[in-house]
Amino acid sequence: MNLKPLYMNVIVKPLADETITKFGIVIPDTVSKEKPEKGEVVAVGEGRLLDNGQIAPLKVKVGDKVMFKKYSPEAIKLDDQEYLVIKEQDIMLIFE
Amino acid sequence: MNLKPLYMNVIVKPLADETITKFGIVIPDTVSKEKPEKGEVVAVGEGRLLDNGQIAPLKVKVGDKVMFKKYSPEAIKLDDQEYLVIKEQDIMLIFE
Amino acid sequence: MNLKPLYMNVIVKPLADETITKFGIVIPDTVSKEKPEKGEVVAVGEGRLLDNGQIAPLKVKVGDKVMFKKYSPEAIKLDDQEYLVIKEQDIMLIFE
Amino acid sequence: MNLKPLYMNVIVKPLADETITKFGIVIPDTVSKEKPEKGEVVAVGEGRLLDNGQIAPLKVKVGDKVMFKKYSPEAIKLDDQEYLVIKEQDIMLIFE
Amino acid sequence: MNLKPLYMNVIVKPLADETITKFGIVIPDTVSKEKPEKGEVVAVGEGRLLDNGQIAPLKVKVGDKVMFKKYSPEAIKLDDQEYLVIKEQDIMLIFE
Amino acid sequence: MNLKPLYMNVIVKPLADETITKFGIVIPDTVSKEKPEKGEVVAVGEGRLLDNGQIAPLKVKVGDKVMFKKYSPEAIKLDDQEYLVIKEQDIMLIFE
Amino acid sequence: MNLKPLYMNVIVKPLADETITKFGIVIPDTVSKEKPEKGEVVAVGEGRLLDNGQIAPLKVKVGDKVMFKKYSPEAIKLDDQEYLVIKEQDIMLIFE
Repeated sequence: MNLKPLYMNVIVKPLADETITKFGIVIPDTVSKEKPEKGEVVAVGEGRLLDNGQIAPLKVKVGDKVMFKKYSPEAIKLDDQEYLVIKEQDIMLIFE
Repeated sequence: MNLKPLYMNVIVKPLADETITKFGIVIPDTVSKEKPEKGEVVAVGEGRLLDNGQIAPLKVKVGDKVMFKKYSPEAIKLDDQEYLVIKEQDIMLIFE
Repeated sequence: MNLKPLYMNVIVKPLADETITKFGIVIPDTVSKEKPEKGEVVAVGEGRLLDNGQIAPLKVKVGDKVMFKKYSPEAIKLDDQEYLVIKEQDIMLIFE
Repeated sequence: MNLKPLYMNVIVKPLADETITKFGIVIPDTVSKEKPEKGEVVAVGEGRLLDNGQIAPLKVKVGDKVMFKKYSPEAIKLDDQEYLVIKEQDIMLIFE
Repeated sequence: MNLKPLYMNVIVKPLADETITKFGIVIPDTVSKEKPEKGEVVAVGEGRLLDNGQIAPLKVKVGDKVMFKKYSPEAIKLDDQEYLVIKEQDIMLIFE
Repeated sequence: MNLKPLYMNVIVKPLADETITKFGIVIPDTVSKEKPEKGEVVAVGEGRLLDNGQIAPLKVKVGDKVMFKKYSPEAIKLDDQEYLVIKEQDIMLIFE
Repeated sequence: MNLKPLYMNVIVKPLADETITKFGIVIPDTVSKEKPEKGEVVAVGEGRLLDNGQIAPLKVKVGDKVMFKKYSPEAIKLDDQEYLVIKEQDIMLIFE
């Protein structure tokens, strides 16, 4: 079964802190009350609908490991794995 | 009798949790206070009116099973079946 | 005497619940605090003024039976019949 | 002496309820807390300034009898007659 | 010394009520809590910067007597005369 | 060392009231709670980024004496002189 | 490992006050409650997505020392060095 996000929606599989720490990155608790989250992109929407009716494809691709910030991400569970549904503008950067 | 949504309006038939669970998807209660809803699209509007006066057709089609989030969806009952009227931008993804 | 709405304004004659129930449609009270209303369109404005100065004609036509949602519709009485003045974007769907 | 409204501004001479009732129209008190007002247009601005720098001329003309809604219309008195200054988008319809 | 307003800024010399009453115009106190003000335009900005980068010249000219409404106009004193700095969209009409 | 403002940012050296009074201008305290400030422009950004991607150069130039209003201007000290960082739209007029 | 910011996101390495003071710049505490921060740009996004679908490249470059203001910057730690993720519009000026 497939999940196909609409427009700017992106589905990410949350990554545990350890996974990221392995890369040498730590997100400190003390700086910001709303701690950013990390995840791996598993599905992306077709793109952003522009004022002129065209679709601007998203920059993130399936497999990208990303850091994002979203106040109340939508969560779904598929085969016992939890996923989050966010929008591309919530993503700040890609770990490469 | 037909219901014809205007512009970006979409009519969905709510799907029970079991229907979705059958696909292996569970929407956990604990993650987000405003739990997303699921439904099957039964009618779609003509499209979004753009600034240049053109209509951008909707991406969702009749028969699509969708997950959406709407704070107070409009409900109507037709032949004892309840339907919800939402807008396409409330829809996050399509189950395929 | 004629009433000519401006731009996106639409004049509707409210329809009693019974009229709609006859079509098999019921709008349940319990789902949404602000219950949508039903009406028959009796006059429509010329259209929406776009950023480029053109007018996008309205989609609803005189005679359409519509469901709309408006927090405080303007009411006028003409020959003892009450009418409501709404805007086209308040209309969600047409009963056909 | 002349009063020349700028852009979308419109000057209206308020019409008493009786004047309108004569046409068979009554605006009931009970429906909306902010009762719409009626008036006769006595001067109109040149038009709305569009994003592209052009002016979209107003649809209302001097002499039109209009219904409008404005929370705190500007009032001026000229030769003992009170006038209100509103904007065209506050006008919902023209009585013809 | 010269004062050169930027963009849509306009400098007006406030006009006393008597000056305006002379024209037969009175602005009643009771209608609106925020009473409109009157003034004579003494300097105007170059125009409004449009989205496309062009400048739309202002409609008001030096010498125009105007009625405007501004919640907290900026006041400056020059050679013992007080002036107000407003924006053109705060001006509703020109007395001719 | 140089300070190079980005886009619409402008750096001004605050001018004491006396400097301005010398020109015959006084900014009265009583009219507006948030008193406008005066300063001399010492650096300007490249311009405003327009929707079409072009840059609209700023109208103010280095050396202009300006009156501006900003609720909480950013202050920096350079060689014991304090400067304020504002945006061009906060500037109302140029003293010439 | 690389961090690749999306769109207008910029990663900065915070600079201690002493670093900046060395240049002769001091940011006084008393002027603004929300004190601006300083940092060195270590990575920049591809640019701002415009309404027409084009990308306007950012003006700041890697290595730029910048002053910015952000209420709750996102912080990450990489190899024991803390970085902040901001957006280009939060940056007011470049120290050259």
